[in-house]
Formats: sequence, structure tokens, C-alpha cells
Amino acid sequence: MTSMNGISEQPLYTDSDTICALSTAAGTGAIAVVRVSGRDAFAIVDTIFRPAGDKTPLSRRAPNTLVYGEIVDEQGATLDQVVVSLFRAPHSFTGEDTVEISCHGSLYIRRTLIALLMKKGCRGAMAGEFTRRAFAHGKLDLSQAEAVADLIASESAASHRLAMNQMRGGFSRELFALREQLLQFVSLVELELDFSEEDVEFADRSRLTELAQHIEQVITRLADTFHRGNALKNGIPTIIVGETNAGKSTLLNRLLHDDRALVSDIHGTTRDTLEDTVDIQGTTFRFIDTAGIRDTRDTIENMGIDRTFRKLEQADIVLWTIDGTSADDALQQLSEQLLPRCAGKHLVALINKTDLLAPEQCARHRRALEKWGIAPDAILEISARTDADMTPLENHLAAWAQRDDSASDVVVTNQRHYEALLRAQTAIRRVLQGLRDNYTGDLLSQDIRETLHHLGEITGEITTDEILSTIFRHFCVGK
Amino acid sequence: MTSMNGISEQPLYTDSDTICALSTAAGTGAIAVVRVSGRDAFAIVDTIFRPAGDKTPLSRRAPNTLVYGEIVDEQGATLDQVVVSLFRAPHSFTGEDTVEISCHGSLYIRRTLIALLMKKGCRGAMAGEFTRRAFAHGKLDLSQAEAVADLIASESAASHRLAMNQMRGGFSRELFALREQLLQFVSLVELELDFSEEDVEFADRSRLTELAQHIEQVITRLADTFHRGNALKNGIPTIIVGETNAGKSTLLNRLLHDDRALVSDIHGTTRDTLEDTVDIQGTTFRFIDTAGIRDTRDTIENMGIDRTFRKLEQADIVLWTIDGTSADDALQQLSEQLLPRCAGKHLVALINKTDLLAPEQCARHRRALEKWGIAPDAILEISARTDADMTPLENHLAAWAQRDDSASDVVVTNQRHYEALLRAQTAIRRVLQGLRDNYTGDLLSQDIRETLHHLGEITGEITTDEILSTIFRHFCVGK
Repeated sequence: MTSMNGISEQPLYTDSDTICALSTAAGTGAIAVVRVSGRDAFAIVDTIFRPAGDKTPLSRRAPNTLVYGEIVDEQGATLDQVVVSLFRAPHSFTGEDTVEISCHGSLYIRRTLIALLMKKGCRGAMAGEFTRRAFAHGKLDLSQAEAVADLIASESAASHRLAMNQMRGGFSRELFALREQLLQFVSLVELELDFSEEDVEFADRSRLTELAQHIEQVITRLADTFHRGNALKNGIPTIIVGETNAGKSTLLNRLLHDDRALVSDIHGTTRDTLEDTVDIQGTTFRFIDTAGIRDTRDTIENMGIDRTFRKLEQADIVLWTIDGTSADDALQQLSEQLLPRCAGKHLVALINKTDLLAPEQCARHRRALEKWGIAPDAILEISARTDADMTPLENHLAAWAQRDDSASDVVVTNQRHYEALLRAQTAIRRVLQGLRDNYTGDLLSQDIRETLHHLGEITGEITTDEILSTIFRHFCVGK
Repeated sequence: MTSMNGISEQPLYTDSDTICALSTAAGTGAIAVVRVSGRDAFAIVDTIFRPAGDKTPLSRRAPNTLVYGEIVDEQGATLDQVVVSLFRAPHSFTGEDTVEISCHGSLYIRRTLIALLMKKGCRGAMAGEFTRRAFAHGKLDLSQAEAVADLIASESAASHRLAMNQMRGGFSRELFALREQLLQFVSLVELELDFSEEDVEFADRSRLTELAQHIEQVITRLADTFHRGNALKNGIPTIIVGETNAGKSTLLNRLLHDDRALVSDIHGTTRDTLEDTVDIQGTTFRFIDTAGIRDTRDTIENMGIDRTFRKLEQADIVLWTIDGTSADDALQQLSEQLLPRCAGKHLVALINKTDLLAPEQCARHRRALEKWGIAPDAILEISARTDADMTPLENHLAAWAQRDDSASDVVVTNQRHYEALLRAQTAIRRVLQGLRDNYTGDLLSQDIRETLHHLGEITGEITTDEILSTIFRHFCVGK
């Protein structure tokens, strides 16, 4: 770990402390697990643990074993009957000696046990400190450590898969390979500087250009996955638009299986935007209901329509809800407003109120929509009011989300990684520019070093206490 | 296990199923533990667990060990990196083969893991089913099993100690010894019945009388602990009484460290009773604020005063809050109403508003209170309005609660046990009556059998599916 700033910071904690914390969720459960990690973990737990059978102290027992016994307080009274799990450095999550105490889940026992451990020499762990130690001991790189937090927070199959891929290190391996190659080149370039008066060229400029181009492509590809990764993590933004009274709010309620949106027969009921997320077949969608689009003299409502168009810009999917009973020219008019704004987005047209429609009216709408370039399978006929079954629409959305989904994909989901990639992209582009313009070795070297630095920030080869503190502060205590 | 009713009940579950459930608290935590118990526990987990190193299946590994690896779903995708704990029958909590899977605490992982286990042949455990199995396999008797639930729910040192004593079996051992002695006698009495025509007496009537008297005393002693046990478990009922505007609500707020009670300067603000529990030095107190006692024409307020006196009957401790500024004859008048109602209770007199009092006024009140028989150390001078420090009063209350508290005491805290003890008490008293009146052996035998039955209900030697279902239904799932 390299400290990037020269200021000597007072450490808030030292790695030599033995730390403890509740690692399971707070609240009452059948059991709770208190984790103790650090060089005195065995010795400290030995002072309060009385094994049921064989009296061998924990410090002299085999690792990866379970021991049943009692926790006794300083007066010799039994606090609880527990099972302890023993892990010996470096074969533990943190890389340190670790004892996990599985006790009964009462608030009183948890609290008293932790107080007892602290009396015997443990320090209460800070948020993320177990994972930070795993990073410090080389058990995880930084991007893997961050994936632990994402994994714990994941609530859908898609966000879980992204976190799991990152934790298994696919992303890190890709960056590590790039850095290794780039490091070799920068050494050669820097070697040239030692022989600057002799005008030698150890680093083959055309091979360096090739490598830099490859790196630039990989970085750009990774940075480009961020939008999708972020959408998968926070819900794919899906906007519901259409004329007033087309049934947008009813549709939202159906999709949410909930009565969240206010529904009425008065035109223009929804003035502000409503958002909520729903898991559909393992992917999270963030549905956004909007104000209806129509000519209106109501200033507030017009502001709502403006907001609709601004929200539309951020959406990946547009659900155009069409009141099937309205006239053809109204549809035509709306299509002129809407279609130019949907470029690059996935547009789904929903012909609503089919319960009130003659089949030929429905077919006429469909022909018009197809004429305007909407794919036949992206035109669905629904009756949001009477038909609670949203299955065809849900299937369509899920299929779209999984259209190019591959479990082996490396997807960037973390804002910090994304920003570091953008900085690395700028730097590697300067390297390429420098190569084209025949910059001297020392200028090239500086830009390559900067690229290396930003790539290293992601995996934690380059880091500062400040970065680490920011990252781990957002963890829960006990992880 | 004896079924007491002849009706054949359709079992809701079978003991041969392998069951699984989340055993840690719900909610997001760093880790969560999913418990699997039953004869197929190893085989089922083997189908979804891939060990990191040595590939030996769990079913062929040593018990009481920890194995690191991955949970893989049916598509071969990694769900999580986990540590599994192996326990082999009968050396587990349930007495069955048990695997505990320690996974990351995300909602998605927990849910998916349990769904995967159920697909592979597990059944979701019912509330308390792990403990019910521990009981069925003789790992715990019924009163110990009930103590597990109390232990998990315990929030104070006192209620924790009661549950721990019960779980460690002190109560059960005492009852078991009594039953054993009584069983010997009833066999002898019943043997006499076989020789009824010969008029023999195998069971020495005077020794039987001695034993029955001893048992009656033990049962009565145990039943008598219920009031105290219940108070310790649910909070010692402590009532705050006094004239209107004596500062009762202010005192309650101070004790609760909270602004729960409405406080005003208008006489008679508190018309209804307010209750809340507070932990003081390891004991839970249930404080009850009441309407002030004074002559009033307000009907609703008079109803409040009636309620105050009714509440007072149920209290163990009475905190008589005295407005130190009020006249001596008002104090005298109130003492006449209050003191007769405090017989058998612990009365503490609090001379309040000392900030507004001349020392001689305070001393005069104290002399009056002592004259009426209140112990000097139970008279405290306070200023509830200005003095946030309640330490002397808290020390006094804690000392009273611990006055005859001994860790080895057997205390009955469970309503079901209390009721069974009362039924056993009635039966053993009939035995004693029968011995005095020279009842025949068959009548004696019947009453002794009934005593045995009710004692056996407590520890579970005698039980019905209905009793078991009622007990374990109140457990959490996962225990």
C-alpha cells in the first residue's frame, strides 16, 4: 500500500488490535455470530470460553474445527452455551487468526458477549474493518472487497451476478494483465532515459502503440459497461409515457402489484413523476410514471410535461401507453412529439383499453405503429384496467434485459471504478497522441505512469488511507 | 411421548424430513446462517456445495469441522462463497445430522439458497422445529426447550439468568427427583391392589405421608416463586402514586430518560395510567404512572383515582411521590388513604421539589414519614424537575430487586409450568387428605398418578401433540 499524500495521518486504528463485532443482522434471531479477528483472537476467547468436553485451549486446537462449550463471565456465571469456529491465519476471511462465536440471538447475550470480549482486550470493529484487513493481507483486491458490500446489498439475480463476478475477480484479472504489460513498456521507456545521450530506443514504438490502442479499447469498453451495470444494479430506468388518461398510472399499479399511483378518470391526474422498482424474472426495473402529454393551459401541468421529456432522456426503455379508443390523428400527433425523442432507447408500444376496442380499430393502430418503425413484437395489446395479468409485457421486458447478458461479462457497476477508468482513458489517449507526435520518452513515461496509477486505484495496488476510509465507511460493522 | 387423547391426529410434518431455515435474524448483515437438519442433511448439501480444496463430500468428512467452498446452483453458477459447519448425530443441537451454511447476508442469497435447498429435498422448518427435534431426540426436556425461547427473548440480566438456569435444567432435576420417589411409592400402593383380599400394606403409610408432605412443600415453594419470576421476566411492577401535581409524571420521564408522560402544571393532568419498562442495573422495572389522588368533582378524574388504587394492588413497589411544598395535614390525610393499601409491598417515599424547600420543612416531612413506619433508607429527597440524576433512587430499587437473589435459585417464570404446579398441588393435597382419612389404595393411587401426571407435563415426560404444538408455535422459525 503506497500512501499518496505526504501528510502523516494519525491512524484511527492499528492493524495489530484484535477486533470483534456482531456479524449477523441485528434483531432477534435463533442464533447470532460474533466474529473476533487478530493476533490475540484465540487467547482472548480462551479467557471466557469453557469447552464442554476436552479442555484443550483454543490456541492449541486444530484450525477449521468447531468446539461446543460455554461463555462464562468474570464472576464465573454462564452467559450462554455456544459453538465456536476456529480459523487460523492465513486461512481465514481476514487472513488473521479468527474465532466466530455462534451464540443464542438475544439482544442481552450479544451485547454482554461483546462487552466481555472488549474487557478482555478486543476493540470493537469499525465498519468494514474485517474486509479492510482481508484487503491489507492480500486476501482480496480492492475491487473484490467492494464487491463484498455489493453482494450483501444485492436484491436481484442480476445485481447479485454482477457482484459475484466482481468478487471472483474477473474485472481485477483483466486490469491486472493490462497493467503488467504496460509496466514492462514503461520500464523500457524509462531505461532509455538513462541512456538519453545515446539516442537508443529499447521500447519498440509500434508495439507500444499497438498495446496502448488495445488498452484504450479495453478501458473504453469497460467504461461503456457502466451505464448498463448501473442500470442493472439500481434498476433499468423504464419510463411510462402517453396522452393524459391513457391508463399510465393503472399500468404502473399493475406492474408494481400495488396501489401506489393515484388513479382517476380526470385528465392530468399525475402531475409529478412517480418511481418504484420491481424485480421481474431476476432483473430490477425502475418504473417511472409521468404526466400525460397533451396541450393544456394549466401551467403546473405543462411543467409536468417538460419534466416527462427530461425524464425520458434518462430512460433505457420507453413504455408508450396508447389509449386505443382515441382518434387516429391524436396518435399521429403524439408520435411526432415522441418518436424523435426515443432514438437509442427500447420503445414498447402498448395499445391499452382493448376491452373497449373493436378488433379492426386495434389492427389499424398496430399498422400505424409498424409504419412508424416499431417492431411488431414490441407492440402489445393490453387492458390495464381489467387485466391484472401483465405476463406478456413482463416476458418482453425480461427478454430485452437479458438480450446480451452473459455470466462471464465484466460489467462496471461502481462509480469509483468508472471515474478511475475515465481518468485512465484520458491518460492513455494522451499516450497515443504522444506516440503519434513522437513525444520524448520522459513525457510518454509520465502519461503511462498516470494510466498505471488510475488502473491501480481500482484494484488497490495504488491507494491512500483516504480512499480506503471512504470505501470501507460504507460497509456495515461486522463485515 | 404419550399421546393423551385417543383421536388420531394427522401429523402436520414428519420427523424423517430434512428441514432448513434461516437461523440468524432477518435483515441485512455481513453474514447469515442457514441451518439444515435431518438424515439427508449431508447428502442434500453435497448436491449444491463445491469445496474449495479437498473434494471429499461432506458425508465422508469428520464432524465438528469447517469447510470453505462455493454454493452452486443447478446451472452451475456460483451463488456464494460460504463456510459450512458439520455436526453429526447425535452430537448436534437437534441430535440429527446438521449442516450450518454461513453465507453472505444478502436477502437475495438467503432466499435463493433456501429455495435451492428445498428443490434438493429439504422442507422449510416450522417455528421451533429444530428445538422440537432436540426435545424429541432427548437433547433437552420440555422445560429446557421452553427456556431456549425465553433465552432468545431475554433483554435484561435478570431475565437472562432465569432462562439460563432453566435451560441448564435445575428446575427439571428437582421435579425429576420428586417424580422418581413418588413413582416408587405408587408402584408399592398398586402392588397392594393385586393382593387386595389379603389386606397387606407394602407402602409404609407414614413414610408416604412424609414424602407427600415434602412434595407438597416443594410444589408450593416453586409455585410461590412464579409471582417473582414473572415480575423479573416482564418487569417488576412499580407504581408511582401521590397527590396531584406532586411531580409523578416528571419523575416517570426522568426514570425513562424519555418524554413519554405528559407533564403540565395543571392539577390532574394524568388521568389514565402510563406504563413503560426500564432496565436498571440488570433488572427490568415496569413503571406505572397514575392519576393524582385528591378530592375532586371531576368524574373522569375520580375514575382515574379508582384505577390508581386498583393498579396499586398489583404493584410490588410503591413510589409515593410527595410534593414537599404541600402542607403537613395534606400529607397526613394522604398517608391515611395510602398506607393501608401498601401492606406487603415495598414502599419508597420520595420527598420531591427539594429545590423549593427549606431544610427544616424537609426534615419535618421525614420525621412524619418515619413515624408512620417507613424505613429511613426508603425515604429519599429528590428534585425531579431540576435533578436529572436518578442514581440514588435507581440504586435503591436495584438493591431491593437483588435483595434475595441467588443464581442457584429455581424460579418459575412460565405460565404453563405455574398452572401445572397448581394442579399438582391440588392433587398432592388430595393424597395427603386421603392418607389422613385412610383412603383405600386405589383412591390414593389415582391421586398420586394425577400428581405424577402434572409434574410430568412440565418436563415433557407426559405430553400431547397439542401441548407441543402450542409451545413450539411461539418459537421463531430457525430455532
